[in-house]
Amino acid sequence: MIGAEIFIEPGQTEAETETWFQRLQAHHLTVTRIRMFESYMHQPGGSWDFSLFDRAFILAGKYGIRVYANLFPATDFTDIGGFKFPDDEAHLQRIALYIEQVVNHFKDFPALYGWVPVNEPGAGKLPQSPLTGQKFAAWKQQQPDTLYNDLGYPYLHFDEERFLLDHNTWFLAWLTDEIRKYDPHKPIHVNNHQIFSNVAEYDFPAWRSFLSSLGGSAHPGWHFGYFNRSEYALAVSANSEIIRSGAGTIPWFMTELTGGNMTYSGSRDIFCPTQEEISQWLWACLATESKGAIFWCLNPRMSGMEAGEWAMLNYQNEPSDRMQAAGEIAGLVNTHADLFACARTDESGIHILYTRESLWIEARFSPVDASDEARRPGGVMQSALAYFETLSQLGVQANLKEIREFDFSKDSYRNQALILPHTIALPSSYWQSIVHFVAKGGKLIADGLTGYYNEHAFCILKACPLQELLGGRVSEFKYTANRFTVTFNQPPVSLPAHAWLGTIRPDTGTVVATYHDVPIALRNRYGDGEVFWTTALLGLGARIERNYRPLAALLEQETAEILQQVSFRFREFQKGMLMKTLVSGSTYITVIINKSGEQRTAEVLVRPPYGNNRIFYANKGGSIQGTIITIYPEETLVVEWG
Amino acid sequence: MIGAEIFIEPGQTEAETETWFQRLQAHHLTVTRIRMFESYMHQPGGSWDFSLFDRAFILAGKYGIRVYANLFPATDFTDIGGFKFPDDEAHLQRIALYIEQVVNHFKDFPALYGWVPVNEPGAGKLPQSPLTGQKFAAWKQQQPDTLYNDLGYPYLHFDEERFLLDHNTWFLAWLTDEIRKYDPHKPIHVNNHQIFSNVAEYDFPAWRSFLSSLGGSAHPGWHFGYFNRSEYALAVSANSEIIRSGAGTIPWFMTELTGGNMTYSGSRDIFCPTQEEISQWLWACLATESKGAIFWCLNPRMSGMEAGEWAMLNYQNEPSDRMQAAGEIAGLVNTHADLFACARTDESGIHILYTRESLWIEARFSPVDASDEARRPGGVMQSALAYFETLSQLGVQANLKEIREFDFSKDSYRNQALILPHTIALPSSYWQSIVHFVAKGGKLIADGLTGYYNEHAFCILKACPLQELLGGRVSEFKYTANRFTVTFNQPPVSLPAHAWLGTIRPDTGTVVATYHDVPIALRNRYGDGEVFWTTALLGLGARIERNYRPLAALLEQETAEILQQVSFRFREFQKGMLMKTLVSGSTYITVIINKSGEQRTAEVLVRPPYGNNRIFYANKGGSIQGTIITIYPEETLVVEWG
Amino acid sequence: MIGAEIFIEPGQTEAETETWFQRLQAHHLTVTRIRMFESYMHQPGGSWDFSLFDRAFILAGKYGIRVYANLFPATDFTDIGGFKFPDDEAHLQRIALYIEQVVNHFKDFPALYGWVPVNEPGAGKLPQSPLTGQKFAAWKQQQPDTLYNDLGYPYLHFDEERFLLDHNTWFLAWLTDEIRKYDPHKPIHVNNHQIFSNVAEYDFPAWRSFLSSLGGSAHPGWHFGYFNRSEYALAVSANSEIIRSGAGTIPWFMTELTGGNMTYSGSRDIFCPTQEEISQWLWACLATESKGAIFWCLNPRMSGMEAGEWAMLNYQNEPSDRMQAAGEIAGLVNTHADLFACARTDESGIHILYTRESLWIEARFSPVDASDEARRPGGVMQSALAYFETLSQLGVQANLKEIREFDFSKDSYRNQALILPHTIALPSSYWQSIVHFVAKGGKLIADGLTGYYNEHAFCILKACPLQELLGGRVSEFKYTANRFTVTFNQPPVSLPAHAWLGTIRPDTGTVVATYHDVPIALRNRYGDGEVFWTTALLGLGARIERNYRPLAALLEQETAEILQQVSFRFREFQKGMLMKTLVSGSTYITVIINKSGEQRTAEVLVRPPYGNNRIFYANKGGSIQGTIITIYPEETLVVEWG
Repeated sequence: MIGAEIFIEPGQTEAETETWFQRLQAHHLTVTRIRMFESYMHQPGGSWDFSLFDRAFILAGKYGIRVYANLFPATDFTDIGGFKFPDDEAHLQRIALYIEQVVNHFKDFPALYGWVPVNEPGAGKLPQSPLTGQKFAAWKQQQPDTLYNDLGYPYLHFDEERFLLDHNTWFLAWLTDEIRKYDPHKPIHVNNHQIFSNVAEYDFPAWRSFLSSLGGSAHPGWHFGYFNRSEYALAVSANSEIIRSGAGTIPWFMTELTGGNMTYSGSRDIFCPTQEEISQWLWACLATESKGAIFWCLNPRMSGMEAGEWAMLNYQNEPSDRMQAAGEIAGLVNTHADLFACARTDESGIHILYTRESLWIEARFSPVDASDEARRPGGVMQSALAYFETLSQLGVQANLKEIREFDFSKDSYRNQALILPHTIALPSSYWQSIVHFVAKGGKLIADGLTGYYNEHAFCILKACPLQELLGGRVSEFKYTANRFTVTFNQPPVSLPAHAWLGTIRPDTGTVVATYHDVPIALRNRYGDGEVFWTTALLGLGARIERNYRPLAALLEQETAEILQQVSFRFREFQKGMLMKTLVSGSTYITVIINKSGEQRTAEVLVRPPYGNNRIFYANKGGSIQGTIITIYPEETLVVEWG
Repeated sequence: MIGAEIFIEPGQTEAETETWFQRLQAHHLTVTRIRMFESYMHQPGGSWDFSLFDRAFILAGKYGIRVYANLFPATDFTDIGGFKFPDDEAHLQRIALYIEQVVNHFKDFPALYGWVPVNEPGAGKLPQSPLTGQKFAAWKQQQPDTLYNDLGYPYLHFDEERFLLDHNTWFLAWLTDEIRKYDPHKPIHVNNHQIFSNVAEYDFPAWRSFLSSLGGSAHPGWHFGYFNRSEYALAVSANSEIIRSGAGTIPWFMTELTGGNMTYSGSRDIFCPTQEEISQWLWACLATESKGAIFWCLNPRMSGMEAGEWAMLNYQNEPSDRMQAAGEIAGLVNTHADLFACARTDESGIHILYTRESLWIEARFSPVDASDEARRPGGVMQSALAYFETLSQLGVQANLKEIREFDFSKDSYRNQALILPHTIALPSSYWQSIVHFVAKGGKLIADGLTGYYNEHAFCILKACPLQELLGGRVSEFKYTANRFTVTFNQPPVSLPAHAWLGTIRPDTGTVVATYHDVPIALRNRYGDGEVFWTTALLGLGARIERNYRPLAALLEQETAEILQQVSFRFREFQKGMLMKTLVSGSTYITVIINKSGEQRTAEVLVRPPYGNNRIFYANKGGSIQGTIITIYPEETLVVEWG
Repeated sequence: MIGAEIFIEPGQTEAETETWFQRLQAHHLTVTRIRMFESYMHQPGGSWDFSLFDRAFILAGKYGIRVYANLFPATDFTDIGGFKFPDDEAHLQRIALYIEQVVNHFKDFPALYGWVPVNEPGAGKLPQSPLTGQKFAAWKQQQPDTLYNDLGYPYLHFDEERFLLDHNTWFLAWLTDEIRKYDPHKPIHVNNHQIFSNVAEYDFPAWRSFLSSLGGSAHPGWHFGYFNRSEYALAVSANSEIIRSGAGTIPWFMTELTGGNMTYSGSRDIFCPTQEEISQWLWACLATESKGAIFWCLNPRMSGMEAGEWAMLNYQNEPSDRMQAAGEIAGLVNTHADLFACARTDESGIHILYTRESLWIEARFSPVDASDEARRPGGVMQSALAYFETLSQLGVQANLKEIREFDFSKDSYRNQALILPHTIALPSSYWQSIVHFVAKGGKLIADGLTGYYNEHAFCILKACPLQELLGGRVSEFKYTANRFTVTFNQPPVSLPAHAWLGTIRPDTGTVVATYHDVPIALRNRYGDGEVFWTTALLGLGARIERNYRPLAALLEQETAEILQQVSFRFREFQKGMLMKTLVSGSTYITVIINKSGEQRTAEVLVRPPYGNNRIFYANKGGSIQGTIITIYPEETLVVEWG
């Protein structure tokens, strides 16, 4: 399922359109996505002319390319990504009519594989429109009429945020229902976007009931503002983990990956991907169970904002080096379709959690011009990313999950770790779950202001519901400095920290770090498990300084038992590298990416020892000798362990 | 009158509430302030339930704590500081009803000490609301209908600014009147805030008629954007002088001082005060005749924005080191209540003036993104602050006064100095007063664009009403450079300057500085006094570079006679230190604060020689030997001279 | 026609007004401009009192000063530059009445020279007003109702931008018509402003039919944000070339040049001109065929924003050194009136073109916070300016023209060069013209993304209409880096480049530069001419680094034949200097300005050899020996070649 979007617009010739499908076929790309512009179908007099798109679907069939049809009701020509919500009831009816027309017309084309009901849902904030206002009013009617929490305190309701979550789900479900009226069976797929900030408005678990598969748009030029270019591969990996977790029981694949150059579109920083980056991103997705990826886009559109940008074919419709890189991987994957069809993530047992409510509170409370990164929007998510980045550089796959996506219903969590990185808001409905996790053998790691608020921005440091679990409680948080260093004992490791420190009053916990004689970290046995808790913002501290090695040392120690169960990891922290592992039957596939800027030799720790291995893919001459890999700058190395 | 605000909100237990009053008592804190949330009293059906607050007032009585009740009519839960003006007539009526209910209910509680009619009046700019619009229209009707000034020129009226000034006064007076309907005698107190920018909308002299005392909120995290953290003590001192001057004949005290840590609330830069800072701020207030101070806040509120922040007690209701520091001082002050009760500022005779109109003009004219500090909002106030800071580092108390707060009615101003630092607008009604001041023996010091405009942004450099006084006039102002150096003769001193220089055409004045042969400063005898005038922005120049020593040298020279009359000052400029002096009967109290970051030994010049002295307070081991003090970094040293 | 604006406002005395005219006369300034404030004529009851202005016109006559009357209908006192468009029909009628009154009253004053119908037209963006809305709706009715371009593609219409262009023209024509109702003959003149960004809303060719002369306001403090202070003389030169080109067959002169100091008015960076700058700017205008210049302003206004600023007289109405500098030049020019009356630019044959559509697209597409200069508003115009600056430092006059201002109708373009610097949009109506230019012997130089879009932001890189001309086409543009270096061969020169590079697929063209083996520049013979084309942004790259020397070397080579025909230029690139040449009969006048900050000796290449020369003007002691000039820092040197 690796492919590229063919951008269809009036004015294109049939010959050219055919060329695009030929190109896909020639490069082993088996799937495309087509934006089904109502504007190019619905005629001024009200009639419908589908011919432009009919031609594409027929050609798709001719070349054996499967098509995801992306619904795209009429919008302004300058509306580059499409509207996210209908304006009013009449608009909704126009959309319904469009769906009726398009689905009925295209559903029987053999090339049609499935539907994408809307492009990139996710509005960033609650839109102002009559329909939204009306829906919001109705939604409020259904909310419990309480002004006070269980303790009798007033609290923040986050109505806008909670409604937006539901509103996204409602609209997706409505779109799906409309499609299903005319096409009850074809797969339905949705691509979210701007994941690191929009994620708090996506209720992925709720979507699983009506989606066939989940997807995403991962465009560094629009979405990866928290990352430098050398970190984009890691960002794709993190983005993928978030979507994999959101998909849960349904499959997922990356719906949009950047295929080419940007000129004016994109945000602050733009670029043109190298062929090496194309390989890195594609493998990063595949190594996260993605069923494939569709590049945006195959051919450069000629009109409007984005004209001449983003494409994998050049202006002469010839394949770029990026296209060739993608095609090579696609060919390889197709050849080993069986291997990948049932490949699953080789779970490490380590789960980095975030909570929607932390993001909501941060978005409401943080001053945009704050001096401290922790007080600017992004502090929470970047804390989570820091742990992900650290583990990636240890060669360890980590899950990245909204708390609702973690399964707290098991009886044992031995060899499982939960990381709560500066998780400022812990929803009360999960307090007992977290306790249960540890009681049943899990390892909990928490840092920063984790557990400062509940889901209503109510401060729970006084009530301290997790006190018994943590083995102590915070007596005060104090702003310390923008950057400072904290030292942990056993073994001694100094880590960059940031902003606040909480003074801990230990109960059952053992103090494992102090700062000017004040306890700032505890280790506490609880039930069959253990908690490692510090009030220092170790994740954000590491990320601000791009100094992950000390945190890696700490994590290696705190998850030592778990790591011993991990099939593959780096023997030593590899700055600027990442490794992810798939398992398929008795075969393991490790994907290793080198963004360090230098040639590296690294030992892979293997458990149990797999004697046979071979280079499955290497694009810069990398090699393996026993368990020692040699990998060149920018290279992606894929090793198969038999 | 040192205390801390107890934050009352639903959900708190009686035991906990009692603990807070116990804590106050145990730490010699005798006063609290309670925000009287209508939201927690006024029931949905319209009835009133005061029980939450009754409990607090009863406990206050039990522990002998006096309560300032801060009226807080219903507003959004997220409205952290409360509204500043009513929206419409109906809103005004709801407020009146609230006041009737609350004042009638609480006025007879023995613990009730007084009323704070509104939290932190000061809107920053004219709000848009029906009531304001209506009041503004009526206000305009009463204004004289002249388009031209006395010279026949058109001019700017600053209606919005002048109305806002009156509107604040009207609303405060209205609130007071409403309270007085039910409680004719209890003290009424108001705390302004954001003083360094809001001051131009406060007509303090007009407030004196209905207020019992004046106050302020001094929160570095919200209000001290012009200052670095090491300057916060000085900022508290400056803030205090502004309020003391505003209070005039009525007493004042600091209504809110930051008590604890910030997380998301606060502006760009936040922090957690150290115990040393608590001492510095408290003493800086006391040394400015403050009748005390109330820390915001005692207990951390648990709900809403600010949850878990600002408090002097920790989450276990135990006293922080900040609380202990405040308590220690409170105990000391209480023990010497007689000494402090009649303590007055030991006036230096030096008065730094600013004018509302300068701030209004700057706010309207300055481009926010200007390269030069002088052209950005804040240039005027920072010029004044620079002189204050310079004198503070000489150990000299300086008054900081809006021009209307200075008493121009005296017959002699011998040993008095007025400083007009870059006072771009001189209201015409004060021209003669300034002349009178000098004629009667005063020393006038002016720098920068002082006297460029009158109160209507009309340029008065052509008419030059102060020419005779100044001994010359400006022929041109010229932008020179962002930073440059000017040199004064006799003795030669080079000072950092900034932005413009005016070419002076001397008449009777003696040129005391030139720049490339152009006269830029004059000394002029006038009547019994003297003027020292330069067109260089010496204050702002010093402040931009944080290089006050040259300006100190100049000021020492220009105020030499006056300084000889000052009871206590440093023999030498003490970078990063400040000294303020109170006199109580025949006892003097000097408060010395060391923010230099290093241990210092400094000689105090004493006039007349006071043989006996003793350390009244020292929190880092500081000492005195004769007139030589030794003071440690961050220390506050209080010396009593018998 | 050198003069200064007398600012008339109520309150001024007759004696003072007379002084101003005396000052003009005494300094050989023969012209003034007076803002004809309706607010100071139209009385509350509806009557008109012109006496304030009558007095000025009478005094102008007395001292032989010609007056440009600048219409200025009633607006807010704080509206510093006047409104740009009427609000509604009633407003339009009030303006018509005002014009009737003012023109009828003043048209017969002998001193009246001409009319300026509005101050500084140019709104920056389409204003929101009833009249504009109505006009826009009507305008749209007249537009062709096509959604698709000739190729069948949808496209952007840029209606707002195209309407604003027409709307400006309409309003100017309407004003002119109103004036002509009462005064059919007097010259009519208009001063545009903010030229480097507003130019895309001025349709200069369309204005020529109703204007007698074109003008401009060139205030570095408001308009030269792309330039450092040391570049202001060059900016005046570029501004002048744009207006000269716009004026075409009608004369032009600089309507406003900064005369004095700024305090609060002006944008980010302000200053006070030196007398040397006054000379530089005045000579830069004169050397661009300006018929003179009027300084803003003679006397400092006393009221409102701008009070006390901008003036050439000081507050005592005495001449500043700036006034003396201007007067000296005016005297010299007046003495040689014959020489200057028929002086024309000594055309180099080199024309830097820009297109409105490039600016429109950039304004719509570019993200304001983009990391790359090329993606921020200004990238296009600064690319053009870079070529202008480079040629100026070679001592070569270059034309700076909107593409519609270039005459494509000739039969031969031998010794002519067109430069298309990063001209992202080439209007389709000019494709054939450009081809014609080269076919007929012209040299075309193009860089960057020239020809990426057509006038509708439609990407033409696939269709590639100029492929035959260019000798190849782009296969891909790729973002490369913010800064990088490209190397051209023959002779080898390395130039700073920026942002993107396009991969060129050559046909007939010869590759003259590669980057990592990819062709990035071609030379191609076409017809009788030649094209030098690179996809590197050489102009913007040079400008970002302020490193023009390599680009100069390249241009010297590419325009070698043309340069041999140029009468005067520097033998060697002179960093920080500029030279412009006028020809009057058989006399040449070269104006040389030294902004390098150091004394310079430079050889002037002269063709054909002119034996006689003399210093016509030098204000710092500069001299000439044969063809070797010596020029001091900040000096302006004018040499007459007989």
